[in-house]
Amino acid sequence: MKVVFLGTGCGMPSTRRALPAFAICLKREILLFDAGEGVQRQLQLASLSLQRITEIYISHLHGDHCLGLPGLISTMSLLHRMNPLLIVGPPGVKSFVYKTLEMTHVEPIFQIKTIEVVKAILPEQPLYSVEVLPAEHSVPALSFILRMSEVAGKFDPEKAMLLGVPKGPLWKRLQQGRFVRVAGKRIVRPTEVLGPSRKGASIAYSGDTSFNPDLASAARGVSLLIHEATYSNELKEKASENHHSTATQAAEIAVLAEAKQLALVHISPRYENNQQHEQEARSIFQRCIVPNDLDVIELKHPVSGDN
Amino acid sequence: MKVVFLGTGCGMPSTRRALPAFAICLKREILLFDAGEGVQRQLQLASLSLQRITEIYISHLHGDHCLGLPGLISTMSLLHRMNPLLIVGPPGVKSFVYKTLEMTHVEPIFQIKTIEVVKAILPEQPLYSVEVLPAEHSVPALSFILRMSEVAGKFDPEKAMLLGVPKGPLWKRLQQGRFVRVAGKRIVRPTEVLGPSRKGASIAYSGDTSFNPDLASAARGVSLLIHEATYSNELKEKASENHHSTATQAAEIAVLAEAKQLALVHISPRYENNQQHEQEARSIFQRCIVPNDLDVIELKHPVSGDN
Repeated sequence: MKVVFLGTGCGMPSTRRALPAFAICLKREILLFDAGEGVQRQLQLASLSLQRITEIYISHLHGDHCLGLPGLISTMSLLHRMNPLLIVGPPGVKSFVYKTLEMTHVEPIFQIKTIEVVKAILPEQPLYSVEVLPAEHSVPALSFILRMSEVAGKFDPEKAMLLGVPKGPLWKRLQQGRFVRVAGKRIVRPTEVLGPSRKGASIAYSGDTSFNPDLASAARGVSLLIHEATYSNELKEKASENHHSTATQAAEIAVLAEAKQLALVHISPRYENNQQHEQEARSIFQRCIVPNDLDVIELKHPVSGDN
Repeated sequence: MKVVFLGTGCGMPSTRRALPAFAICLKREILLFDAGEGVQRQLQLASLSLQRITEIYISHLHGDHCLGLPGLISTMSLLHRMNPLLIVGPPGVKSFVYKTLEMTHVEPIFQIKTIEVVKAILPEQPLYSVEVLPAEHSVPALSFILRMSEVAGKFDPEKAMLLGVPKGPLWKRLQQGRFVRVAGKRIVRPTEVLGPSRKGASIAYSGDTSFNPDLASAARGVSLLIHEATYSNELKEKASENHHSTATQAAEIAVLAEAKQLALVHISPRYENNQQHEQEARSIFQRCIVPNDLDVIELKHPVSGDN
């Protein structure tokens, strides 16, 4: 499981930083968070296939977070995508998608489902669930928490043998959490051969927001907090006026949330390197990075156990 | 006077080619033709200031030609632009601009004037005029011809001295085409000290189009023809179906138009280099190039005289 930072800038792109977007790459599918102008090219540069994207989460409808969406959908269509696409965003996202496609003469051949939401736990998927909560921004905006599902405990082949289950398809059945019947008609339960269930990894994304303790409460114990840090602390008044966060505030949220790791994104183009943000945040929360475009974080999933 | 090719691809971007856009850089102002997604970043990579753009010409409302527009305008606004911006495009361009800005919460602080046009010679500017004619595409689409105004003939300092005009502000007055009165009250006319007027450079841009002889007629003698060549000749049926041109057809238009130079743009991502397009077009029209992104053509203006 990895997170690919496609665009770590904000407002306007710079030669160093593209506009906001990151991809969470699961085994097969990719979940895309935000889709700033140019996101399809950043995906190409990261060698990620557009067609693996099954769901797109848009934090809010400022152009730097969503103007890459119509081009991305158009290209998916040009490449003959057949699989449906889910787009989750604040109220207005549906009309943004359909109107921009209509005005630019795009008629996708695949199904697009949009969900407009303010606060919700979205219907659980087999692999994960997503919680949406309001961010504190100048326009309706969202934060997201992705929680990977629990993973079955580690399979103990010795125990299986002792219980008379021969190596082969029956092992797989047990690993999938199903009962098996062995010679002599004895039933072996998965719990007899599996260790305790292992907790899934989790990722919280702030979207654009000023300091918001609600996010910290909801994201308690998260494996990775991806938080906006438009400014560093000397511009905290500006951050407050513009409903954004400083590196200090992002780090404080990470502390409150007891996050395992923090990544700062949405860095204003005024900063020529990451040093100021890094130093500021690390003085409060040590396990912090400020990714550059196309940087990757590999995330352990499940978070416990030997696998 | 120079032309900067910002994006030479089409449909979807590739790592090599951004989406369609080029800039014509005059002494002060920049005229932008088409604005594919990512154009603001390409302008940055070309070290061209967004704020020098006074006019934007959109050939049609397929996303690869216009989806960079809202982000560009948003950034102009973030950078506190005060000067007005003219946007010329086919019917629908006004609503595209205003709806996308509205949906992404952008309220520009500068004036945006939009002109929707099908066929017209736009009101002449001091430095140039622009003719718009319909292209042959699957949606309403335009070709553009930019004609730089005539430049006054070369000033002859010896003649001016002989006529009793002393070096200084009176020379400038004559060079500007104005009469001057010298000692003894004799009037000196500009025609007495200036050579013949010199023809201005001109650039025609096809936009997306199938083979269109009307463009050749209108662009007769043009200094530079920038023509789409989505495909090479082996895909001429596909070109015809999709209302696009091949390199061969673009070269044929250049021959018909008696163009001085041809640049092929809007190259399908299927072509990994320029070789096939170049060979094909040059066998018909020798003075042809296939620019890469950020390539520049310096254009002589005025086209005759010693400058």
